[in-house]
Amino acid sequence: MNYEPLPELTNIEQLGEFALIYRLTKDLVIYNSSTQKGVGDDAAVLQFGDEYLVVTKDLLVEGVHFDVTYTPLTHLGYKSVAVNLSDIYAMNGVPTQIIIGLAVSSKYSVEALEDIYEGINAACKKYKVDLVGGDTTAIPSGLTISITAIGRVEKHRITYRRGAKVGDLICVSGSLGGAYCGLLVLQREKVAFMGNSATQPDLTPYTFVVERQLKPEPRRDITLQLLERDIIPTSMIDVSDGLASEILHLCKNSNKGAVVYEEHLPIDSRMATVAHEFEIDPATCALSGGEDYELLFTVSQSDYEKVKDMENISIIGHIKQVGKGANLITSSGQKVKLTSMGWDGLKLKRT
Amino acid sequence: MNYEPLPELTNIEQLGEFALIYRLTKDLVIYNSSTQKGVGDDAAVLQFGDEYLVVTKDLLVEGVHFDVTYTPLTHLGYKSVAVNLSDIYAMNGVPTQIIIGLAVSSKYSVEALEDIYEGINAACKKYKVDLVGGDTTAIPSGLTISITAIGRVEKHRITYRRGAKVGDLICVSGSLGGAYCGLLVLQREKVAFMGNSATQPDLTPYTFVVERQLKPEPRRDITLQLLERDIIPTSMIDVSDGLASEILHLCKNSNKGAVVYEEHLPIDSRMATVAHEFEIDPATCALSGGEDYELLFTVSQSDYEKVKDMENISIIGHIKQVGKGANLITSSGQKVKLTSMGWDGLKLKRT
Repeated sequence: MNYEPLPELTNIEQLGEFALIYRLTKDLVIYNSSTQKGVGDDAAVLQFGDEYLVVTKDLLVEGVHFDVTYTPLTHLGYKSVAVNLSDIYAMNGVPTQIIIGLAVSSKYSVEALEDIYEGINAACKKYKVDLVGGDTTAIPSGLTISITAIGRVEKHRITYRRGAKVGDLICVSGSLGGAYCGLLVLQREKVAFMGNSATQPDLTPYTFVVERQLKPEPRRDITLQLLERDIIPTSMIDVSDGLASEILHLCKNSNKGAVVYEEHLPIDSRMATVAHEFEIDPATCALSGGEDYELLFTVSQSDYEKVKDMENISIIGHIKQVGKGANLITSSGQKVKLTSMGWDGLKLKRT
Repeated sequence: MNYEPLPELTNIEQLGEFALIYRLTKDLVIYNSSTQKGVGDDAAVLQFGDEYLVVTKDLLVEGVHFDVTYTPLTHLGYKSVAVNLSDIYAMNGVPTQIIIGLAVSSKYSVEALEDIYEGINAACKKYKVDLVGGDTTAIPSGLTISITAIGRVEKHRITYRRGAKVGDLICVSGSLGGAYCGLLVLQREKVAFMGNSATQPDLTPYTFVVERQLKPEPRRDITLQLLERDIIPTSMIDVSDGLASEILHLCKNSNKGAVVYEEHLPIDSRMATVAHEFEIDPATCALSGGEDYELLFTVSQSDYEKVKDMENISIIGHIKQVGKGANLITSSGQKVKLTSMGWDGLKLKRT
């Protein structure tokens, strides 16, 4: 075999997801003029006719992205579609088709797969997306769901991670940190349940955060509002790994800095209550909790009047010159460097 | 939890891949007019501008589709691209982009992933396809590769599985059964190696069949020849599950019967030698061995002059009325019903 152990092999987890992607794709060659944007954004952008096609793929792996002991399979199917549609909306696109790959082990029955498909179909119905194909195969253990989402966008409305300008307003939809707090609750109740399986946990007080974790909704409403108000963001990304991480992505891709104000972070009181219960600062949850699937985008200051009364939008800061770095101004007025401590899919956090 | 064991849950393996796909997708609703063809062909067909976009996805799962004890990782990367491109060629399309999903366990190093990518890049280079994105994540065990391939085809050249007419000639590219014989050799040598790891197996006498298994090449040359000769097949499919299974797919989708002649099956003598060594009839390998990734297509009899001297093409039979069934005429003149005994990705054949 060619794969005898070498003296120094590099551990994937140590290298980290973004460094790994860079190392694997740094020598990529592009052969087709239809390839408008390849690796490095929420979705690839391809030129077809007068429009751009946007394509994205996300994997959901049992034991990494979900735990079936507390995730209903219908929710899992729904979420697996939702997280992919979120990437299409993050390009300012409209999702139109999905393709499903399912690798299932023998512990799953046909009825279990029907539950997953019930969730997939519910998401397709809600977002008017067609399931157009896929592949179903065995796997020795666990369950892996691979979804490819396809969307379209008028060429002049495509929105990349690059493109933010100095002075642009930084906007984010909805509220942040809820999905992470929901995960904390579910993990705590799982441990309690395993200690005493006679009692079913009562999750009623945690409905908001648990729903944020189990059944995220991609923000189609935001891209629709942007269209109605004739706003084209200068840059956009979806918040899957945590706000701080996503702001750093926009800054890096746009070669800019940023300042964000803690007092403007969209914090829902129901999330804050749970965060306090776990003795975590709600702002930390908002900055570093992953899986909110909100949209983070920048708009020109000249669009302020259009954006200020958009529903479900908070203006949390603005773009600075690259030399200024990316910082948070705390409620007490301190300046703190933004660091990425978000979710890393290469680490088996949930097993 | 909602998933308490029910009295009678259905085992996925017992149901089988095609029945499962039917059961999961029978109530599919299509919302977008751009969806030209959804589930049920080698690839989905979407309308974008003046062309059709074809999209396909195949998963390759360790322990199901490949065994890393005898599969070099560069070959694995190459093959994972090749099998997806084959689906695009089977729609008479030209592949242009791929997206990679990799779920890797901690037993793989960064260098191992670089080897996989070396194979992926080699296939991209050979077939002039752009790698435009993907997702890399952890998985508790094993390795799963999910590839989505995208291609384009002029509308009038799109070729589905449906469309074969009575009297059409049935054509197949290359030779059949080699990949299956290669698998037999590799599995035998693995067992021998595990019994006595001091001796490395000498695979030289089996180079042809082992290469057919480890490094299949999708038949771009055939779709190019079809274009040059102005032939549009009436139906087409790639031979991934075995010739008999694919002929039955064409018949079912076209609502036709077929007759195939054993004496016309393309059997390479190097495959036949190995088949005899394993005491299997070479024709059985050709009919039921999977993973050859050849193209099977039908053409109108009026195209006979154009097709008869195409390189690497055998005319193996013709299309009949549906009531005639799908049959093989053996070399001794017997009529035998064609049955699908090909590869089923839902069965853990290789573990």
